[in-house]
Amino acid sequence: MPQPATADDLALLDAYWRAANYLSVGQIYLLDNPLLREPLRAEHVKPRLLGHWGTTPGLNLLYAHMNRAIRQRDLNALYVTGPGHGGPGLVANAYLEGSYSEVYSSLGEDVDGMRGLFRQFSFPGGIPSHVAPETPGSIHEGGELGYALVHAYGAVFDNPDLLALCVVGDGEAETGPLAASWHSNKFLDPRRDGVVLPVLHLNGYKIANPTVLARIPDDELASLMRGYGHTPHFVVGDEPSAVHQELAATLDTVLDDIAAIKADPGSKRPAWPMIVLRTPKGWTGPKEVDGKQVEGTFRAHQVPLAGTRTDAGHRAQLEEWMHSYRPEELFDADGRLVPELRALAPEGTRRMSANPHANGGRLLRDLAMPDFRNYAVEVEKPAASTSAATAVLGEFVRDVVARNDDRFRLFGPDEVASNRLQAAFEVTDRAWNATVIDGDDHLAPGGRVMEILSEHLCQGWLEGYLLTGRHGLFTSYEAFIHIVDSMLNQHAKWLKTTLGIPWRAPIASLNYLLSSHVWRQDHNGFSHQDPGFLDHVINKKAEIVRVYLPPDTNTLLSVGDHCLRSRHYINVIVAGKQPQLTYLTMDQAIAHCIRGVGIWEWAGNTEGEPDVVLACAGDIPTLETLAAAKLLREHCPELEVRVVNVVDLMRLQPASEHPHGMSERDFDALFTPDKPVIFAFHGYPWLIHRLTYSRSNHHNLHVRGYKEEGTTTTPFDMVMLNDLDRFHLVMDVIDRVPALGSNAAVLRQRMEDARLAARRYTREHGEDDPAISGWTWE
Amino acid sequence: MPQPATADDLALLDAYWRAANYLSVGQIYLLDNPLLREPLRAEHVKPRLLGHWGTTPGLNLLYAHMNRAIRQRDLNALYVTGPGHGGPGLVANAYLEGSYSEVYSSLGEDVDGMRGLFRQFSFPGGIPSHVAPETPGSIHEGGELGYALVHAYGAVFDNPDLLALCVVGDGEAETGPLAASWHSNKFLDPRRDGVVLPVLHLNGYKIANPTVLARIPDDELASLMRGYGHTPHFVVGDEPSAVHQELAATLDTVLDDIAAIKADPGSKRPAWPMIVLRTPKGWTGPKEVDGKQVEGTFRAHQVPLAGTRTDAGHRAQLEEWMHSYRPEELFDADGRLVPELRALAPEGTRRMSANPHANGGRLLRDLAMPDFRNYAVEVEKPAASTSAATAVLGEFVRDVVARNDDRFRLFGPDEVASNRLQAAFEVTDRAWNATVIDGDDHLAPGGRVMEILSEHLCQGWLEGYLLTGRHGLFTSYEAFIHIVDSMLNQHAKWLKTTLGIPWRAPIASLNYLLSSHVWRQDHNGFSHQDPGFLDHVINKKAEIVRVYLPPDTNTLLSVGDHCLRSRHYINVIVAGKQPQLTYLTMDQAIAHCIRGVGIWEWAGNTEGEPDVVLACAGDIPTLETLAAAKLLREHCPELEVRVVNVVDLMRLQPASEHPHGMSERDFDALFTPDKPVIFAFHGYPWLIHRLTYSRSNHHNLHVRGYKEEGTTTTPFDMVMLNDLDRFHLVMDVIDRVPALGSNAAVLRQRMEDARLAARRYTREHGEDDPAISGWTWE
Repeated sequence: MPQPATADDLALLDAYWRAANYLSVGQIYLLDNPLLREPLRAEHVKPRLLGHWGTTPGLNLLYAHMNRAIRQRDLNALYVTGPGHGGPGLVANAYLEGSYSEVYSSLGEDVDGMRGLFRQFSFPGGIPSHVAPETPGSIHEGGELGYALVHAYGAVFDNPDLLALCVVGDGEAETGPLAASWHSNKFLDPRRDGVVLPVLHLNGYKIANPTVLARIPDDELASLMRGYGHTPHFVVGDEPSAVHQELAATLDTVLDDIAAIKADPGSKRPAWPMIVLRTPKGWTGPKEVDGKQVEGTFRAHQVPLAGTRTDAGHRAQLEEWMHSYRPEELFDADGRLVPELRALAPEGTRRMSANPHANGGRLLRDLAMPDFRNYAVEVEKPAASTSAATAVLGEFVRDVVARNDDRFRLFGPDEVASNRLQAAFEVTDRAWNATVIDGDDHLAPGGRVMEILSEHLCQGWLEGYLLTGRHGLFTSYEAFIHIVDSMLNQHAKWLKTTLGIPWRAPIASLNYLLSSHVWRQDHNGFSHQDPGFLDHVINKKAEIVRVYLPPDTNTLLSVGDHCLRSRHYINVIVAGKQPQLTYLTMDQAIAHCIRGVGIWEWAGNTEGEPDVVLACAGDIPTLETLAAAKLLREHCPELEVRVVNVVDLMRLQPASEHPHGMSERDFDALFTPDKPVIFAFHGYPWLIHRLTYSRSNHHNLHVRGYKEEGTTTTPFDMVMLNDLDRFHLVMDVIDRVPALGSNAAVLRQRMEDARLAARRYTREHGEDDPAISGWTWE
Repeated sequence: MPQPATADDLALLDAYWRAANYLSVGQIYLLDNPLLREPLRAEHVKPRLLGHWGTTPGLNLLYAHMNRAIRQRDLNALYVTGPGHGGPGLVANAYLEGSYSEVYSSLGEDVDGMRGLFRQFSFPGGIPSHVAPETPGSIHEGGELGYALVHAYGAVFDNPDLLALCVVGDGEAETGPLAASWHSNKFLDPRRDGVVLPVLHLNGYKIANPTVLARIPDDELASLMRGYGHTPHFVVGDEPSAVHQELAATLDTVLDDIAAIKADPGSKRPAWPMIVLRTPKGWTGPKEVDGKQVEGTFRAHQVPLAGTRTDAGHRAQLEEWMHSYRPEELFDADGRLVPELRALAPEGTRRMSANPHANGGRLLRDLAMPDFRNYAVEVEKPAASTSAATAVLGEFVRDVVARNDDRFRLFGPDEVASNRLQAAFEVTDRAWNATVIDGDDHLAPGGRVMEILSEHLCQGWLEGYLLTGRHGLFTSYEAFIHIVDSMLNQHAKWLKTTLGIPWRAPIASLNYLLSSHVWRQDHNGFSHQDPGFLDHVINKKAEIVRVYLPPDTNTLLSVGDHCLRSRHYINVIVAGKQPQLTYLTMDQAIAHCIRGVGIWEWAGNTEGEPDVVLACAGDIPTLETLAAAKLLREHCPELEVRVVNVVDLMRLQPASEHPHGMSERDFDALFTPDKPVIFAFHGYPWLIHRLTYSRSNHHNLHVRGYKEEGTTTTPFDMVMLNDLDRFHLVMDVIDRVPALGSNAAVLRQRMEDARLAARRYTREHGEDDPAISGWTWE
């Protein structure tokens, strides 16, 4: 039975807190004289003062109290830092626990190490100012605010004994993603998942403003938290010893409550406890600077004393501030934390800064994978029969779910079934721990499918799940995946940075399946038509990003298998959910996907150098390109046509730009050095130009794609609106191949007529001409 | 005093609701036989059934009840449709009110008109399935869910007599932006703003899932709404007459409460009423189809009867369903709504479908603009003195605020002061209607500066404000503006579509000022470094988007003035907030901005054809380019250098691609047809390639920009990390200009040495060498 905190306990705990605060201030300010054993001089102070003090003492306070609880209860705990700009605090705590010196051996637990620790912070060649991948114990940078709580939930899914303490800053709490994240508790299974303990830290201010949640009455705030399904506990104060007492007692209560729920989860969703901690911003820092109040105001947000290098008064104030922590009581002659304080930190992997879940790659186990070839569809002839690619992939995914029920989940904004992965429901349910009524379809607390109408939450849960060493797949409408553009940026930055951190192990890839894509928004129209996520992803570091456009079912299976096995990438797969033509047998599909791009000889009419190359990427553009190839074969049999299909978009880049990039020679071998290339692309056409601008034949490359024209209409009308249809592709060939001679004008007119006829049919009948929609190669 | 609803009132109201439901079903299903005056045959039914029934009866119910309230109270009301996919409902109501026929004169209020109304819905060449720009009365498409409430608030700011009824779907309520939007009430001034009446419509289901808010206990939901600062009122039922009674009474109560608050706002933030309406999904539709329950389940989401064209049973069920509304009682022989129902609709601009606020361009008044030239900074010589561009712009913006206190607001996520626009606080405050305490800085209910730590809310408020005919400016960190990528997509689609709708008047531009940009994240590092918003914006329709990179203070003033005066664009301005060199006098700046791109002759050393062009766009790249030009002048005086600065990025595109695009001749005149061009760019380098790939000299274009390398470091270290520094630019020139001969190797080595020395200095001192950071042209 954990013991309540005695006055002695709390005095020690306060000393530990002072040590963390001291180290935090030291990082922000000092180049040298780390223990202030000589008077502070200008040259001891950094010339550029960069960092955030305001949130740091609160982060340190919670860290110290959690340490006590971890030791008393042998908790397996993670610390998720919403206000990630409070980097000095988390670095200080990792250093106090020894884990910092374990991974950065040059920074030992002595005066030299402390000097180095201080100097490196926010310093050129040193470490970032935020909680970052470089910070042991972190899965969360917190620079872009809003994702702390959703990351914490992602971390505890399928980790039944893990407790994620999640500090939510009151600034961050104003963001949309955070405001929605509170509802994550309806998706948590008390039996098979761990627990998130949110601490809403009201220090009252953002950069220049008070925060909303700090300026509504306590009863309104308590009501909000109850509405979110939590039992709130308030800890309020600005006098350290009183706050220590109250926080220790509250943490005891709250952890007892959590333990009781875990011991007997019952059948109803528990009202998990959460803590509202209201303490001053920049607590224990300068109360006033240059006549203005700082502690307890927004002025404490970054660096409270800005002139310490040049202003002796500020410097004296800094010195006094740092001495107020009484470093001489905290660190021994060598600069090492004194033993009675060191004893307050948990040991080994119980230290939050050394919890293996925060370095998920170390816990990562391969997925048990079924053989994707077993799900192949029969393809007797290319472009003769149809199959719904994602539905077949769904069967494969179903079996991945079934074989990995401790480490794989599906995520999607209410679209897993809509995107045709519903086979998953043969073996699992949707995670759901809210009310269930008669007629509900596959809802259960232990479900492996995470569906909420928030791309932010899907993305954030998945990120947290991946960062703690598991696997997943996110299915979404193509247009709305832009909702998480900025979250993707931050995850990509995390992946890029960790590549350069030897002690961080690679994690599983973040896999997107974008179905319900731009070309098939029959129900929804223009607002649902946007293929720009590809452009966005490709801006990220080449080492990290991969984009696949499998044209049919077997290629999708091959790509899907590859992505689920891969590590440390962001994989984007675009594949339609509607029945569509199949082209390749499984063996052909595997070979095609390994090459990433290739000539489809059956679709062209030459084995030699062609007169024109028809290139395509994406299921709908592939269909239109093949139909155009057939039209050309019929109408201009003398024209030598080559068809090239691209699955792996990154192949188009030069090898110098992307690991998958093609050499100049390979590119020219496929696309010719000098012949016209008509490229039908799934997305915005200029993306292809961007990838190929340095290729020698680039001036002959003519790209068709989505040019932001659309509405609720038929599939063929959509491609016509964007000049991506088969008839227009033939017209593009005519316009680019002078050799066609006098035939050209006649054929061009015929294509114009065909477009008009198709449009007329559609306008009249409300559906596409079956001769077009039912097109096959034969 | 409004009268309570009598049974007769409600019977009529029910009839009106039935009429709207009838027209909604008709739109989804029928090609012909609109009034079912003959038996329903297959050819009367659309071959492709596309639309969303589930949410529609609830939308229609609220519309009918609002009509009663509007007439009783002479309300000036707007209807914001969160579940925008319920398009048939809003079209139906606009048609019933006559406003549909007013703007689409071919669709009269008769049988022919009704036939056309039905046929056009979700039909090729017709109208979209959603509430769209084409829908009279709408400011909100709702395809991408989450923005209804924030749009509604944007609409009522500075419209004190406007009431926005905002229907929030329970699916949408799960999104982050919506979850945060509830707190908008802390930013509303009951005296100078209008009122938002949120109706949370719990129909219980999304596409395939129940919704979270429908599956938490009522007391938890009520607690949540109280926590959000509202007084909730529940209306629950599935029996129409009982729900009519309850909803009418509740709406009376709620509108009385609103009137009382408006009459006496008091000094405390009011707990504005809101309504929770719990009615079945697909209410009044088929109860069961093919043995499965449909009404009241997720199966009612889209088209409940899918086989009506081919399946006689389904068709009979559709016929029965439509007859259940008793169209013969609702429409006269000509197909016109019977007079006693027509009398239920408000008249003229009181009709929600004809409220002028929903066609904001019609209400738009020009801003009263100060003369931006009066704010010019003195520039005696180029690149000799410094100025903080956004701080000077702030003075201009301050005076725009002061002169337009009924139609202009600033929006930003707690960064207006951080981005140096704090001069605004000389004339106004931050909007704030939560608790105020001693020491608070410029907080007041009537403030014109909207700050909340949510880019989503800033964007959404501003969109709502613009769409209802006002003006604004959004300032943000460059990296985090990606948070609203998807919202920008939707706004751009709205703008693009309205260009083609004659009755929609152009609105004021959506203006972004991105300060705190990628190159100056001294405090925050890698997570704050992302210039990709430009790439994202440029994917939108060329008619809509403009991107400006003013290099100094006077150019920023000129660009800022231009953007605030413009109409119907999305303008993105990137400008640093730190003191930086000034280059152009105001007259020069105006001329340069009008051209958008130009040769800076003072910075080059030739008036003829140069050996090399140094091009630049953005403040930091301009600085490095000029420093490189000076280095070249010193070290290779014989090399003829031209410096070209780009302010208006769209100028680089061909004239065929963008209205601002340059002709080939103009481009070649600036960038030469055949000389090397070293282009220093603010953002990702491939964006310049994308804009210029078709230019004849493109193969000579060598672009430096941000290549996703960064951390917390000094400004010059940042440009070095990305090879954008002056020394590297000189090296790029050396590598591209063979004419330099034997000099080249020596100079190249010198540049390498200079880079190393700069890096060493920075690593040692923690700041940039003053010779570099203090560089001037002289």
